[in-house]
Amino acid sequence: MKEKLTVIKVGGKIVEEADTLSQLLNDFSLLPGHKLLVHGGGRSATQIAAQLGIESKMVNGRRITDAETLKVVTMVYGGLVNKTIVAGLQARGVNAIGLTGADMDVIRSVKRPVKDIDYGYAGDVKKVDGEALAGLIRKNVIPVMAPLTHDGKGQILNTNADTIAGETAKALAGFFDVTLVYCFEKRGVLSDESDDNSVIPVLTPDLFRQYVKEGVIKEGMIPKLENAFEAINAGVTEVIITSAKAIGQNGGTTVKK
Amino acid sequence: MKEKLTVIKVGGKIVEEADTLSQLLNDFSLLPGHKLLVHGGGRSATQIAAQLGIESKMVNGRRITDAETLKVVTMVYGGLVNKTIVAGLQARGVNAIGLTGADMDVIRSVKRPVKDIDYGYAGDVKKVDGEALAGLIRKNVIPVMAPLTHDGKGQILNTNADTIAGETAKALAGFFDVTLVYCFEKRGVLSDESDDNSVIPVLTPDLFRQYVKEGVIKEGMIPKLENAFEAINAGVTEVIITSAKAIGQNGGTTVKK
Repeated sequence: MKEKLTVIKVGGKIVEEADTLSQLLNDFSLLPGHKLLVHGGGRSATQIAAQLGIESKMVNGRRITDAETLKVVTMVYGGLVNKTIVAGLQARGVNAIGLTGADMDVIRSVKRPVKDIDYGYAGDVKKVDGEALAGLIRKNVIPVMAPLTHDGKGQILNTNADTIAGETAKALAGFFDVTLVYCFEKRGVLSDESDDNSVIPVLTPDLFRQYVKEGVIKEGMIPKLENAFEAINAGVTEVIITSAKAIGQNGGTTVKK
Repeated sequence: MKEKLTVIKVGGKIVEEADTLSQLLNDFSLLPGHKLLVHGGGRSATQIAAQLGIESKMVNGRRITDAETLKVVTMVYGGLVNKTIVAGLQARGVNAIGLTGADMDVIRSVKRPVKDIDYGYAGDVKKVDGEALAGLIRKNVIPVMAPLTHDGKGQILNTNADTIAGETAKALAGFFDVTLVYCFEKRGVLSDESDDNSVIPVLTPDLFRQYVKEGVIKEGMIPKLENAFEAINAGVTEVIITSAKAIGQNGGTTVKK
């Protein structure tokens, strides 16, 4: 039987506010068993870019990463945010290591091809080295992954943290019994958007299809859940969608076969 | 017999200019055997701090690291500079991993005690985990170390890169036959400051004392060489003082017992 591994993805907002970061680090450090943290970037990059006189361009909610913006996200995500988390976890007895995709070549990506929109230095993940990550994890070294990858030709690429979490969970499914936890603002997938207590506890493919048909699950939640089912189909044991405040607690929506 | 390891320290100036960085990455990637790179920060931090409206304070050539400056050096040294080097080495077939002292807890330090001057968030190295670094190196993972450490209580500390290189070389001397290479502007320790070709090829403790007595070696070079002899006395096989342009070539000044 494989050992259990929890892959947790948290957004940038949680890690850039001192009190929510502190709670996250406490909760993550208390989580039993093998674990891995993927963090987003958040608004601090936008703010620092603005202070440096670099305009942040967004199209459809995605950042356009020009050369100057890439420098800023490499500094903020790969340096400030990542190392603050690592030092904070070390203080809590967790032997963390901060990684971008370039470190140990753990995540190779390609620059997103230009179709209608040129996203600039944005990376689409091609390959996660599950063996290298599993090697660290088995030595109780806890990877803390920044939303940055590389193309193997020296180019760093800005990369969606949800994608990094999903692809990393899949690559590690051959080595561990993986639970992938996506943290967001709500306590789970809601059956009634206006009621925070209407969390759908379990979603199977059949239930998902039914809820979509009924219009209960809609819009941005549909691709999020499609990604979750894709991870399940690729060997991840379960995907939990929950609030960052609920890490280590039962609750949220569990997506499974 | 122990395997050979070369620890190379380069200054910030070399890594922040595209052409000298490219040459360094080429030379470093061609270096045979086990190796580890320590990089300084350079002026880009000062420049970015200025753009962010943060004044860089220097006393006796040392940066005063206040809270805002610490954020900047964590971004620039730990993020931009470190990850640019790592991605560049990966492109040259070197399986690099970027590390601060917080990552895997490889370097613990203490905030420099305030005597005459308050250096702020500056770290004095207390302990380097040679075993953790040796574990990576033996797997052909090449550490690239940023001039940042941590105190184990969640505080990142700005740390002198020469010190990191020296302490790391000493900590690894129990595992490898270590050559420590300090790169600076000149081709080595000069017997005549005005003649770049007057490199002293070998310095033993006796020769060093003699040159100091004669006034041939003076000022800033004295503590630099004292540190080199300290490393030798702590088990480092040899210390080479040379130019970054001469990495992988014979030359420079070799300090040995």
